[in-house]
Amino acid sequence: MQSVLKILAEVETGAVTPAEAVARSFDAIDRLDGPLNAFAHVADRKAALASAAKAGGPLAGIAVGLKDIFDTHDMPTELGTPVYAGRQPKTDAASVAMMRARGAVVAGKTVTTEFAFLNPAATRNPHNLDHTPGGSSSGSAAAVAAGMVPIATGTQTGGSVIRPAAYCGVAGYKPSFRLVPTVGVKTFSWSLDTLGFFAAGVADAAEFVARLTGRPLAAETVDPKALRVGLYRSGVWGEASPDMKAAVRDAARRLAANGATVTEIAEPGALSDAREAHSTIQNFEAAMALAFEWENHRHQMSEVLFKALEQGRSIRPDTYDEARRTARRARHETTELFDKVDILLTPSATGPAPQGLESTGSPIFNKLWTLTGNPCVNVPGLRDKAGMPLGIQLVARFARDRLVLSAGTLLETLLSDT
Amino acid sequence: MQSVLKILAEVETGAVTPAEAVARSFDAIDRLDGPLNAFAHVADRKAALASAAKAGGPLAGIAVGLKDIFDTHDMPTELGTPVYAGRQPKTDAASVAMMRARGAVVAGKTVTTEFAFLNPAATRNPHNLDHTPGGSSSGSAAAVAAGMVPIATGTQTGGSVIRPAAYCGVAGYKPSFRLVPTVGVKTFSWSLDTLGFFAAGVADAAEFVARLTGRPLAAETVDPKALRVGLYRSGVWGEASPDMKAAVRDAARRLAANGATVTEIAEPGALSDAREAHSTIQNFEAAMALAFEWENHRHQMSEVLFKALEQGRSIRPDTYDEARRTARRARHETTELFDKVDILLTPSATGPAPQGLESTGSPIFNKLWTLTGNPCVNVPGLRDKAGMPLGIQLVARFARDRLVLSAGTLLETLLSDT
Repeated sequence: MQSVLKILAEVETGAVTPAEAVARSFDAIDRLDGPLNAFAHVADRKAALASAAKAGGPLAGIAVGLKDIFDTHDMPTELGTPVYAGRQPKTDAASVAMMRARGAVVAGKTVTTEFAFLNPAATRNPHNLDHTPGGSSSGSAAAVAAGMVPIATGTQTGGSVIRPAAYCGVAGYKPSFRLVPTVGVKTFSWSLDTLGFFAAGVADAAEFVARLTGRPLAAETVDPKALRVGLYRSGVWGEASPDMKAAVRDAARRLAANGATVTEIAEPGALSDAREAHSTIQNFEAAMALAFEWENHRHQMSEVLFKALEQGRSIRPDTYDEARRTARRARHETTELFDKVDILLTPSATGPAPQGLESTGSPIFNKLWTLTGNPCVNVPGLRDKAGMPLGIQLVARFARDRLVLSAGTLLETLLSDT
Repeated sequence: MQSVLKILAEVETGAVTPAEAVARSFDAIDRLDGPLNAFAHVADRKAALASAAKAGGPLAGIAVGLKDIFDTHDMPTELGTPVYAGRQPKTDAASVAMMRARGAVVAGKTVTTEFAFLNPAATRNPHNLDHTPGGSSSGSAAAVAAGMVPIATGTQTGGSVIRPAAYCGVAGYKPSFRLVPTVGVKTFSWSLDTLGFFAAGVADAAEFVARLTGRPLAAETVDPKALRVGLYRSGVWGEASPDMKAAVRDAARRLAANGATVTEIAEPGALSDAREAHSTIQNFEAAMALAFEWENHRHQMSEVLFKALEQGRSIRPDTYDEARRTARRARHETTELFDKVDILLTPSATGPAPQGLESTGSPIFNKLWTLTGNPCVNVPGLRDKAGMPLGIQLVARFARDRLVLSAGTLLETLLSDT
């Protein structure tokens, strides 16, 4: 995989020029994307290298893969649906304009599921082509895992960043809600949609977002002895595979062996309730957000999307309002959990990437934290017996993004010592 | 002015067909818009009448004016800036698709200030062509005031719904934050941008939004004797003109004379602080939301917008985060105010519409409630000595939209008894 930190160091020391660094991504895409289908559209190489050559700024030399629901003024943005085949926006999404202004170059648009929902796309998992890469940010996770780009963007409404990161064995970072603006990214559910990032390691994602936002997010050294870790099996622990359960216990053991305090945290009732409330909020809002598409294009939708929107249209406003109150209570309750621990440790997914491309897997271990808005990382490093990646999810208090990124970097190191 | 309630009744009794009702708006626009400049684009009359003729649904017969930052798939959406001259979206904004699905017809796009910020547009006040109609929803307020359409949409980031409604002597309704989705409406500040509505009377706006959202919002009869009213001069009372101060006292007196309990409410410190925090949040977010326009088109911006974005770019993330915490405290504090009273009564603006078109007036009496997200109405009916409208603002607890609309309807009746 390509490392953001390594590329930035190479550019800063003059070992490579920004254009040379970016050229590697175009070479890798040419060489590797054929069987993977991670890219929906590859940028014009010549224009990208020219722009890298004249770009200065803190992200010079970084080639980005953008999930194909991020608007780009110079490339189509097709949202994973035939409804928008050839759609060419007039502007860049806010986050994309910010990346470019800081010297990053767009390598291309990565494959998304239809409107970033559940209907699988054609992307394959670089660790085994017979397995799903997860979704909805399918192409972004696969593109980073295969070493085609050092960073790629995603969005998470259910589990669309942390889950594909886990399945593809890369770092995933879902920032605190609204840390990075969603302007110019197709809306599915405005209370849930959260921009996220895929990178080789947690510290790579941290450095990219630090430079993008001007926030102090770069991973710091964490003394494990000062870290209070809550082992959070959650109310859906029964959904996790034996391999995943073992992986979570393994991660907890390694943290404890290095001096961290690890305690079991039982799921408060308010958080189980909130997991249920998630789909009410998601589907009610999606039915409104996609009102134009429903009225004009619903017969071009997949069955899974059609049914979710149909269900969303049947939800009464007072049921939605009650779900929002449940979410608010869950946010308070989550904040209180973090009086007792610094970090929650929990599965990133139910297990490794499922075989087949018929499903992108289950977001059951992610959607609660999307609803509460807490920052999460997927920490890669562990594998099942067949060699497929297993991801560990860390969660921190709202706005403690640097802590979750730093603790994620620590755990990543501990997991790599086999 | 055209009344939503009257048109709906006429259509329901068969006194007019939906197409006949809608035709009145096209006739009125033809006759009246010349000197007013309320419309940036008028819909194709023939297509609109054909669509009205076949439309059923709860909003059949209603012609809507849409602020020209609401995307429409069949009309340009130019955002009040030469940067987007001729811009033709592929989709309707979510709220527009919802209106159309319920039988409403779009009469045209109303003039907005540049990107819905402060730089004045060419629209004039129907009560006196030498005065501003207010902004940023300038055309929508003027279009309703002149009787060209029964309903028009706006957005409020500072005071862009309540203030122009007050200046133009029409009802304005700013719903609770996110009651109506902003999807497909140009973002200025995602924490503040709130969709709103202009109509002849408060009950007209209530009925339209009730039918649009399926929520029970239609104005109910309120017994003034059961109403606890807080007279909220606020920390910026000194900014109000003598006429406006007298109007607020007049409104309070009429409510008290009809049995309402009226008590003075002093502004809590947390709310004064929040008024200051508003521009930090607004400008920080606008600098990101308009990042593409800044990078590519900043020399086509007005000075007032350029300076606001420049200032926004200089705000440090921790200053913004502190402003968000201030806003959160203000929301708690506001909720507590409503333990003591049902409704706050406060000016809608500093006075009547200022003379000249060089300024859209001050949002100082509005921006606090935009930040807290509470539902507000502008109640028309009073005038200054020169005959220009003076608006009274009512504010209710978050999500108590029906109460503020019902109390607004009551006050409107009391103000009309001269």
